[in-house]
Amino acid sequence: MSGLPKKMCAFRVQNGALKQITTPLPKLRRGWALVRVRLAGICNTDVEILRGYHGFHGIPGHEFVGEVVDVAGISSAVKEAWIGKRVVGEINISCASLGFQPVCGFCKRGLKTHCAHRTVLGILGHDGAFAEYLSLPLVNLHKLPDKIHDERAVFVEPLAAACEILTQVDVSKFRGAAVLGDGKLAQLIARVLRTKLSRVVMYGKHSEKLLLARPAGIETRKIHGSQRDHAKLRDSYALVIEATGSPSGLRLALAMAEPRGTLVLKSTFHGAAPVETWPIVVKELSIIGSRCGPFATAISLLRSGEVEPQPFITRIFSLADLPKAIQFAQERGVMKVLVKP
Amino acid sequence: MSGLPKKMCAFRVQNGALKQITTPLPKLRRGWALVRVRLAGICNTDVEILRGYHGFHGIPGHEFVGEVVDVAGISSAVKEAWIGKRVVGEINISCASLGFQPVCGFCKRGLKTHCAHRTVLGILGHDGAFAEYLSLPLVNLHKLPDKIHDERAVFVEPLAAACEILTQVDVSKFRGAAVLGDGKLAQLIARVLRTKLSRVVMYGKHSEKLLLARPAGIETRKIHGSQRDHAKLRDSYALVIEATGSPSGLRLALAMAEPRGTLVLKSTFHGAAPVETWPIVVKELSIIGSRCGPFATAISLLRSGEVEPQPFITRIFSLADLPKAIQFAQERGVMKVLVKP
Repeated sequence: MSGLPKKMCAFRVQNGALKQITTPLPKLRRGWALVRVRLAGICNTDVEILRGYHGFHGIPGHEFVGEVVDVAGISSAVKEAWIGKRVVGEINISCASLGFQPVCGFCKRGLKTHCAHRTVLGILGHDGAFAEYLSLPLVNLHKLPDKIHDERAVFVEPLAAACEILTQVDVSKFRGAAVLGDGKLAQLIARVLRTKLSRVVMYGKHSEKLLLARPAGIETRKIHGSQRDHAKLRDSYALVIEATGSPSGLRLALAMAEPRGTLVLKSTFHGAAPVETWPIVVKELSIIGSRCGPFATAISLLRSGEVEPQPFITRIFSLADLPKAIQFAQERGVMKVLVKP
Repeated sequence: MSGLPKKMCAFRVQNGALKQITTPLPKLRRGWALVRVRLAGICNTDVEILRGYHGFHGIPGHEFVGEVVDVAGISSAVKEAWIGKRVVGEINISCASLGFQPVCGFCKRGLKTHCAHRTVLGILGHDGAFAEYLSLPLVNLHKLPDKIHDERAVFVEPLAAACEILTQVDVSKFRGAAVLGDGKLAQLIARVLRTKLSRVVMYGKHSEKLLLARPAGIETRKIHGSQRDHAKLRDSYALVIEATGSPSGLRLALAMAEPRGTLVLKSTFHGAAPVETWPIVVKELSIIGSRCGPFATAISLLRSGEVEPQPFITRIFSLADLPKAIQFAQERGVMKVLVKP
């Protein structure tokens, strides 16, 4: 397409090192869009990737809002309907959109996020959002209403992950829920649950982060990190969400969950954590792993204003300062850090 | 009651040591029965108790078949209906049967096995079956048809635990299942699943134990213990039952479970095992802890002959030889060991 540069600025990770590069724009397959990144978010997974987990080599970044600037191999009417539109994008690229035939068993069952041949934007085999441009299949894109401006839209991906819980657990069966963790994802989860439950209690270590939750009608409890402190805690819930990002959170969650309770796991820390599994059996707990979720639900919650993530933004950096931004994102008390190409 | 001795022979555990004692017969509360033990089974939990886990002090043993010899504080008609009957007994003694008012929230919801104030036969606060007599509330007892003779009836408790899976998971949704482990509980679980599923595959380390499963229409796979061997195994299932009793089984189960799969945990080993939890999240697994189950279902499976546990009996000892019997039960290749007062 005319008017587009031949090359772009991006950051590439290889063996845990982040390097600024100038590289050709992503090539498009039929039915794919070229998206100019307007704003991208730094997630804990990006930090894990920089530590060498996932074995990812390429351009990281999977939370973004952008503008469609080109679409390949599709009728001009469809193309026109997309060009210039502000979009967010689902990050799992399934075999169906890669043109494989037949599609895998998971895609056939509608479980596209579990596609056996999937690539994942900025995480697995597909370049991501810490760049001026990225590519995604049109089927992954969601147009945004004007009301959801960039600094809110960039939260659609993690908010969708929070909404995944509602597709897995009938939360209306519960009188309340505990959310363990006070970070970005925990904050979104607590707000999503609060749209369905009258009582949501957030357990976290950081007073300043817990304060963010209060205006959203979320109760908060300050906890300390030691196992001894956890042992003193006698609180119990039939629904517990583990979103601390640390193994100690899992231990606390197992202790807090009531017999026959439901425990949703959202943390994806790597490495083996020592876990006592017998409480799962003795209490007959149900543990549900929960990953990517429905973008439409997330967009709807932002449109209605039921969830307001903007207060979580600590700072916006220029894309050129990505290494500094990622460093800053790991400092104590920092919530969401964004980068702007 | 006349004709009963004043004292009985039993084995008591204290701080991990097993000691033969002569002790008064258990005292009965209103609505409770005195049961003369005819045959008792040794379970891995008994071995754990002897290692000092659960902190149990008292008479262990929770798998038994016995005969009602006395009933307290109840009409003579009811009493007559029970005296002389062969019975098995549910091991969880709930607050309702202890006469507490009001009963706890779990009992009110019908979850008696999760009663907040429960004692458990031979495991928690209530003397068990490694004795000539034991006491249980009448509501815990199930009369046995003649067809289920003692050496089959003694399996009702562990078979009920295997049947618990059917109350928690709709197994008819699955085309097959993997059972990890080839021990006593794993064998019962595989047979229970086989009554509902055309394909059940048992993974175990012991050729001679795997051979026991074949006549019941269960496929078997020999595996080795090392993580390296596990990593080579590419088998995957939507339904996996972990019943190995070891942490390595849990790791293998997490690796084997398909995305969105269900993993039932039956092992209650103590101590913290190093577990990588991220596959639970990435594959969005459902993990279901499973403990005690429905006695009526177990009795029905024995009555119909759908499950035949007698081949698992390796040896029957006299109760007086309990220490030897427990030692023997831990030897390689040994399956169920019974003791007869």
